[in-house]
Amino acid sequence: MALSPGSIADHIADIPLVDHHVHGCWTGGTDRTRFENALNEGNTDLVESDDAPFDSQIGFAVRRWCAPVLGLPAHVTADDYWRCRAALAEDEVARRFLGAAGVSDWIVDTGLPGVADPPTLAVWSGSAAHEVIRLESLAEDAVARGGSYVAAFDEILDDRSVTAVGTKSILAYRGGFDGDVTDPHPSEVEEAARRWRDAGRSRLTDRTLLRFGLHRGLRLGKPLQLHVGLGDRDADLHRTNPLLLLDFLRNSGATPVMLLHCYPYEREAGYLAQAFSNVYVDVGLAVNHLGARAPELIARVLELAPFRKILYSSDAFGPAELHYLGAALWRHGLATTLQRFIDADAWTLDDAVRVAELIGFGNGRRVYGLTGP
Amino acid sequence: MALSPGSIADHIADIPLVDHHVHGCWTGGTDRTRFENALNEGNTDLVESDDAPFDSQIGFAVRRWCAPVLGLPAHVTADDYWRCRAALAEDEVARRFLGAAGVSDWIVDTGLPGVADPPTLAVWSGSAAHEVIRLESLAEDAVARGGSYVAAFDEILDDRSVTAVGTKSILAYRGGFDGDVTDPHPSEVEEAARRWRDAGRSRLTDRTLLRFGLHRGLRLGKPLQLHVGLGDRDADLHRTNPLLLLDFLRNSGATPVMLLHCYPYEREAGYLAQAFSNVYVDVGLAVNHLGARAPELIARVLELAPFRKILYSSDAFGPAELHYLGAALWRHGLATTLQRFIDADAWTLDDAVRVAELIGFGNGRRVYGLTGP
Amino acid sequence: MALSPGSIADHIADIPLVDHHVHGCWTGGTDRTRFENALNEGNTDLVESDDAPFDSQIGFAVRRWCAPVLGLPAHVTADDYWRCRAALAEDEVARRFLGAAGVSDWIVDTGLPGVADPPTLAVWSGSAAHEVIRLESLAEDAVARGGSYVAAFDEILDDRSVTAVGTKSILAYRGGFDGDVTDPHPSEVEEAARRWRDAGRSRLTDRTLLRFGLHRGLRLGKPLQLHVGLGDRDADLHRTNPLLLLDFLRNSGATPVMLLHCYPYEREAGYLAQAFSNVYVDVGLAVNHLGARAPELIARVLELAPFRKILYSSDAFGPAELHYLGAALWRHGLATTLQRFIDADAWTLDDAVRVAELIGFGNGRRVYGLTGP
Repeated sequence: MALSPGSIADHIADIPLVDHHVHGCWTGGTDRTRFENALNEGNTDLVESDDAPFDSQIGFAVRRWCAPVLGLPAHVTADDYWRCRAALAEDEVARRFLGAAGVSDWIVDTGLPGVADPPTLAVWSGSAAHEVIRLESLAEDAVARGGSYVAAFDEILDDRSVTAVGTKSILAYRGGFDGDVTDPHPSEVEEAARRWRDAGRSRLTDRTLLRFGLHRGLRLGKPLQLHVGLGDRDADLHRTNPLLLLDFLRNSGATPVMLLHCYPYEREAGYLAQAFSNVYVDVGLAVNHLGARAPELIARVLELAPFRKILYSSDAFGPAELHYLGAALWRHGLATTLQRFIDADAWTLDDAVRVAELIGFGNGRRVYGLTGP
Repeated sequence: MALSPGSIADHIADIPLVDHHVHGCWTGGTDRTRFENALNEGNTDLVESDDAPFDSQIGFAVRRWCAPVLGLPAHVTADDYWRCRAALAEDEVARRFLGAAGVSDWIVDTGLPGVADPPTLAVWSGSAAHEVIRLESLAEDAVARGGSYVAAFDEILDDRSVTAVGTKSILAYRGGFDGDVTDPHPSEVEEAARRWRDAGRSRLTDRTLLRFGLHRGLRLGKPLQLHVGLGDRDADLHRTNPLLLLDFLRNSGATPVMLLHCYPYEREAGYLAQAFSNVYVDVGLAVNHLGARAPELIARVLELAPFRKILYSSDAFGPAELHYLGAALWRHGLATTLQRFIDADAWTLDDAVRVAELIGFGNGRRVYGLTGP
Repeated sequence: MALSPGSIADHIADIPLVDHHVHGCWTGGTDRTRFENALNEGNTDLVESDDAPFDSQIGFAVRRWCAPVLGLPAHVTADDYWRCRAALAEDEVARRFLGAAGVSDWIVDTGLPGVADPPTLAVWSGSAAHEVIRLESLAEDAVARGGSYVAAFDEILDDRSVTAVGTKSILAYRGGFDGDVTDPHPSEVEEAARRWRDAGRSRLTDRTLLRFGLHRGLRLGKPLQLHVGLGDRDADLHRTNPLLLLDFLRNSGATPVMLLHCYPYEREAGYLAQAFSNVYVDVGLAVNHLGARAPELIARVLELAPFRKILYSSDAFGPAELHYLGAALWRHGLATTLQRFIDADAWTLDDAVRVAELIGFGNGRRVYGLTGP
């Protein structure tokens, strides 16, 4: 059912979004294999023939939503899409999609390498770009300094938090939530850091240091983003059920804790957003991967979560298509869901517009302390 | 899509409901803070600004459904709603909402203090009110008597079950389902009771005594209600997955076991209702909190659960709005769902009416042994 | 909303299905009690009055979809349906329903006794029937031979895999997925087989031997089917969450692993189908039991799973109604879901037809190496 003109869809089309969790886009070196792999989130190998990422909801969504941004008809074939895209320079692709996203503020997790940095994102999009500190990357910098790990960690965090608007943890990928998440004693931390340094490894997997980082993030007081649910198969998805964070949340004080992605636990995450005054939720990443099913996902997060606790994000990384697609699918999916509420006389149009603005930018600006555009 | 006249909605509008799990409503002392806190189920602290309970599905649902019962337009603002409500005496509020609910029988869990008792509910609503014995409260009475705990427990249970129509356990809040749920030996029970008495605590958390109460409930043979899923954050929600009750249910004999609330495990609960002849399910409490999304929840419980195993409840506690809202949202949500089945030619209207009557009152009257109004 | 002519429904109506996981149908001896019990998947006891299988989604679906195949009006009463059905010979019932299913290839798990064998299915349906080897049954044959268990297992597997198109494991029913699923050492296997033989039991429950069978299935390289989720209450449903298979899948090489049924974990299974190039998924069995709600289930599996990784199955066993009903509900449910995508301009009709053909037969033919009809 197409949404009628004058509907909530029209209002949502113009909302300037705060994309509160995103990564950089590619700056070059794209080929079709790399592009198709970027459309598969779960698989850490090169995708094989049956994975066929263009034959998936996200693949269909790229053809549907991204093609027109490149001047192609909606639903163009994958081959035609690729041919057109490949003829453009990567920065040209990025400028078109970033601009079309209608995002006023990108809040960028810089923990993934090889992509555009926040200043480049800002230039290409004509919007503001802010940084989020990935705590596990900071830990790697801290251990490399030698001396007291705690002191080094705190010093780097102090320095970077002058400009950064929040922190981010990928504990979900480093053992999951079903273990100890209490704040370790500094002496345990120093001992663990010594072991890590002595082992000569760079990747942080030590639980004590992961817990330390998490609690330093809490202590900072700026929003602490947590990867939850959907990601690649390196994570044990069932160990990322956010309900496993209950004890952590019960002791998290007033620092905003931002549950990211959350699929397939978006209803559990919504519960936590109701149960804790400092918990917020989004369904970024999953929106892109669900494509035509994104409206249902957005509807499910609109169950228990209070409306001031829900945010928008794309979690885009790599192809700039994803930075745009997140916004396009979110606008369409939210409009579809809210129109159903209005049609059922459960909500008024005014209520719907207000909630869309809260989710689209109001909550993000308020929680991250951004000024409007 | 509004439901057309002559539709299943018309039939469901007139069904006299059995609300098979409910608490008392307030008798006075209401202020706006208390009211808003009562709209948040998960949070055990006072809600803060971002919780904004009026900016949630249940808040919107109060404005939509409850306002007309007070003579206000549907979708009135929260401030206007509150102003009107605050001008009425609490018993007047209660009389209006309880009467408007169209409930013939309230089955009342009296385990929560500070609210109207069953006789008061009966008077204010003009309907029957029955009692359910909360096993954990009974345990506290039993331990206070001194002497043999088992004998005291059995004596109180015998006395109260003369009039009570069932029992209720909140094991979900006292450790959850993922532990031993077998029937303990009487000597273990007496020993545990001694420890509890000696510790001078009033709140029952001892697993042995919780298990004992549960099995005394089973042995009584009257419907045994179990809190499942959605509740406040004192419970570990993931430990209330009803699938963790499989071993208990495999040994539960013929006593009806009523799985209450169940969100977000309503599909798992529906499976159990199919797998065990003595298991029943409802989605009370969650219906109120999902508001505009309640139809989808009701639809999900209509997946595996046989239609004679599903019941209606509000689980209302506190504001009498909730006693009415449960009924209003259930009527609307069930009608929406069944109308879709009819429109798809999957069900006939006659089937839909029959199933609505089973869920609305037929199953409740039969299982609890109530006579009709 | 009825689907309009010329729609995706018309295209799907004519698709010749590959039913990639099914059992035999009854050959006689049917009475109403046996029939009603066959409509309840979860309950292992005889169903009692409140189970009333005709008052369930699958019961309503039989009246809706199966009645016309017997020349009765859709939605006929249960009594009238039974009267007509009981007047026909079982093979006549089977011929009608098997023929009406529009299935070109049945891939038959012969592990359940007392039903028609593949050649009989082929004759009654006029279609091809292929066999899948149930690894736990093969284990029972192997242990009965005496001598080396490993040698006997491999010899039988070699013999049967000349014609069989795949293997099947019911590990879900024999302890579940939340334990060791690594490949055991042959000496452990022989020792475990000795213990099993000495114990004189026939039913395989030894974890070592279950793991051995699973890995022999993997080594064979033909599709390995795994029962996941929905089944009877002998299984601990929460131990069949397919996410518990992550470690197994990470080491499963290139052998196709087919996740069967999956309810209520169909979204988790869809994630695995994206995360692993060799993982495939279906929602058979659950489709029959969800009846009017089957479209929503089918829609949920169309979230993360790539479209070349989804297959059709009925998992029918017993009444031939179920062999037909799976197909009818799948056609209707998929058409309903895809029509919504088309109506929302998210997919084109051409895309929808192509995906329906992939799921209906293309993926099955390709993965199992079947030639077309």
